[in-house]
Amino acid sequence: MSKDSQVSITVIRRLPKYHRYLGDLLKRGINRISSQELSNLTGFTASQIRQDLNNFGGFGQQGYGYNVEELYNELGKILGLDREYKVVVTGAGNLGHAVTLYRGFKDAGFNIIGVFDINPDNPRYASRNMEVKHRDGLEDFIKENNVEIGIITTSKENAQEVADIYVKSGIKAIWNFATVDLIVPDDVALESVRLSESLFTLSYFLRSQDER
Amino acid sequence: MSKDSQVSITVIRRLPKYHRYLGDLLKRGINRISSQELSNLTGFTASQIRQDLNNFGGFGQQGYGYNVEELYNELGKILGLDREYKVVVTGAGNLGHAVTLYRGFKDAGFNIIGVFDINPDNPRYASRNMEVKHRDGLEDFIKENNVEIGIITTSKENAQEVADIYVKSGIKAIWNFATVDLIVPDDVALESVRLSESLFTLSYFLRSQDER
Repeated sequence: MSKDSQVSITVIRRLPKYHRYLGDLLKRGINRISSQELSNLTGFTASQIRQDLNNFGGFGQQGYGYNVEELYNELGKILGLDREYKVVVTGAGNLGHAVTLYRGFKDAGFNIIGVFDINPDNPRYASRNMEVKHRDGLEDFIKENNVEIGIITTSKENAQEVADIYVKSGIKAIWNFATVDLIVPDDVALESVRLSESLFTLSYFLRSQDER
Repeated sequence: MSKDSQVSITVIRRLPKYHRYLGDLLKRGINRISSQELSNLTGFTASQIRQDLNNFGGFGQQGYGYNVEELYNELGKILGLDREYKVVVTGAGNLGHAVTLYRGFKDAGFNIIGVFDINPDNPRYASRNMEVKHRDGLEDFIKENNVEIGIITTSKENAQEVADIYVKSGIKAIWNFATVDLIVPDDVALESVRLSESLFTLSYFLRSQDER
């Protein structure tokens, strides 16, 4: 994400992990946890965890630890997971298809209400009773439906054009999967997923093993 | 990635970005670039770039800058992109399908030679003349074919079991898409893609905008 805020992006990136572990603990019926136990689970140090959570007011009590349900709910609120979001996907290829059908996003409140492509005739979507709309209608659709999040799963050649349409239509949060650095205004949050860059850390490792 | 090495993982994660920009420059016929120009392109500071590249011996020349082709090729070698890798995917759902068909990985030398699932009857793969193999054969397949990289696109409930099979069969690099923290031995590189955690940085941003 490219946005400035009081809390550093490094801290924010750790919150979903805390949130996930707390959710698992809740399911297992565990109501209370110390920062040390949370440290054992997550791999972050206890002092790191306390420091991170203190950014948001601090939830623990000396000698008691954290109330799991309370902390889970509070982190959910901080992460904006206590409400739903309207989302569009542009780029109806394999990745767009996978992202659109991924249940985890819907379960977390991210509702994909429109899928767009320059070529809307897509038998794969049709076979699932999903309509792909022509990209010409993207701007109107976003405005009429107050879409808040735009996902980009186009080729890298088309990605900036789609980002421009998103920005022009009022979208403030863009999730980009194309392998290109997009340019967006300062008040728009941009989060890019770099799958190739992630994969290349593994080839780097295998390569460095070769040399030993 | 969870591996220790002399060069910090933060540096390694920047290398693919340098590599990508250099590739773009090469295509545009640009043969020489200063660290300042590279800084303008990538958004990293010139001193950061020089420092990163010095980890690998340093390639630039005072007053000349970098030879684009040479640096591109050297970074490719460091990232292990000068050879091919045999890869398997376990989990033939939507995400597994998208990863398997993503051309960028194949173009970079990552050849997916087998797709496995506990339910191998998959019409979507069959329609593309791709066979999904039963997971019972995974271990033998990896050993017989000297597979080096294992991708996990199963549910989180099945991911650790698959990781265990990978490790047991000799795989040293695992790319995990399941939302779970896997446990692997120290000599196995594990890189996890956290799609939900990435998405939640956007809802965090939208939420914090609400409060203004």
